Amino acid sequence: MRTIYFITGNKGKLKEAKSMLSKINVNVIQNNLGYPEIQADSLEDVASFGAKYIQKKIDSTFILEDAGLFIENLNGFPGVYSAYVFYTIGCNGILKLLDRVDTDIRIARFKSVLTYVEPDKKPRFLIGECHGKISKLEMGNQGFGYDPIFIPNGKTKTFAQMDTKEKNRNSHRGKSFKKLLRLLKDK
Amino acid sequence: MRTIYFITGNKGKLKEAKSMLSKINVNVIQNNLGYPEIQADSLEDVASFGAKYIQKKIDSTFILEDAGLFIENLNGFPGVYSAYVFYTIGCNGILKLLDRVDTDIRIARFKSVLTYVEPDKKPRFLIGECHGKISKLEMGNQGFGYDPIFIPNGKTKTFAQMDTKEKNRNSHRGKSFKKLLRLLKDK
Repeated sequence: MRTIYFITGNKGKLKEAKSMLSKINVNVIQNNLGYPEIQADSLEDVASFGAKYIQKKIDSTFILEDAGLFIENLNGFPGVYSAYVFYTIGCNGILKLLDRVDTDIRIARFKSVLTYVEPDKKPRFLIGECHGKISKLEMGNQGFGYDPIFIPNGKTKTFAQMDTKEKNRNSHRGKSFKKLLRLLKDK
Repeated sequence: MRTIYFITGNKGKLKEAKSMLSKINVNVIQNNLGYPEIQADSLEDVASFGAKYIQKKIDSTFILEDAGLFIENLNGFPGVYSAYVFYTIGCNGILKLLDRVDTDIRIARFKSVLTYVEPDKKPRFLIGECHGKISKLEMGNQGFGYDPIFIPNGKTKTFAQMDTKEKNRNSHRGKSFKKLLRLLKDK
C-alpha cells in the first residue's frame, strides 16, 4: 500500500481525501507541518510557494490542497483568502454582502488546486472547479467552510446537505482528486 | 539630505510619508520593487517576511509600511487582508456587513506597522494605532482605502474629510512615522 502525506490542518479535507484515495489503495497520512501562505492573486502561486517550502523539509511524496470560493458579484471575493474570511465574517457575512442580489446572479465557483510533489521533482498542479450559486440561507450541517451556502449547478441542495461521497462526486475537490487518481494509476 | 527608499506601490502612502519626513530633511524615494506578503495572523509577521526579502535585493536603507483596519464586531476583519478586501468588496461591503450594527458598537482600529531597515541590520518595527468608529455612510473624498468610513475617536469627520496634514496628526500612520522621525533624529 502506497503512502502519501497530506499537509493540512483541515480535518474536513482529510476526510474527503481519505475517502477518494482509498479506492486505489493509497494510504493518506495527515501532516500538520504547515507552510507560509503568501498573499497572491492566484491559488497556484500560493500552492507553488508552499510546495517549495515543504519540499525542503520532508523527503517523501506529499500533497497539499488549497481551495477558494470566487463570487462573481463580489469581484471574486473571498477568493484566495476564503479561509481567513470564513473565520472572521463566516457564511453569514457572505449572505449579508449579497442580501440584495437576485438568485440568478448569485453566481460563484469553487476552485481546488491540488499540488502533488515527489522528492526532487517539480510540483504538479491538478485543478478542479465546481460552478454554482450562493443560496439565500444557510442549509445543511455536513462538510465544512462555505458548504452550507453553495449549491452546485444542476442540484437543489447545498454541499452541506450532501454526505462525503455525494459531495465528492460533485465538488471542485472531488474533481482535482479524480485527476490525482488517474495520475497515480498511470505510475 | 538623507535618502530613504519607501518600498510601496501606494501613492497615498507615499504622499503621507513625504509630508512627514520632509520636516527632518529626509528625501523619500518610491521603490516599486514589491515583495511577497505572506498570509499571516499579524502585520508584523507580514512585514518581517517582506523586509528580509527586500534586504537581499537592495543595499540601501529602506522602509515599508503595512496597515490594516480591524473591526471589533467582525472579529478583526478585514485585518491583515485589508488591501485585498478593499479591492473586492470595498467600503460599501464593510458598510453592508455592519448595516444592523449600532453606532456605539461600530468600534474599529487602524494599525500601521512601519518597518525601518538599514543594510545588514535587523528590521525595526514602529507601531502606530488609531482607535475610532466605522461611519454609517461614506463621507469625504481625500485619502484612500477605508478613509471615507473611519472616524477617529474625538473627531466628527472621517479621514477622507481631512487633508494630509490633519490626517497625519491623527492617524495610525502619522503615529508610526512620528516614531521614525524620533529614531532618525537620534542618529
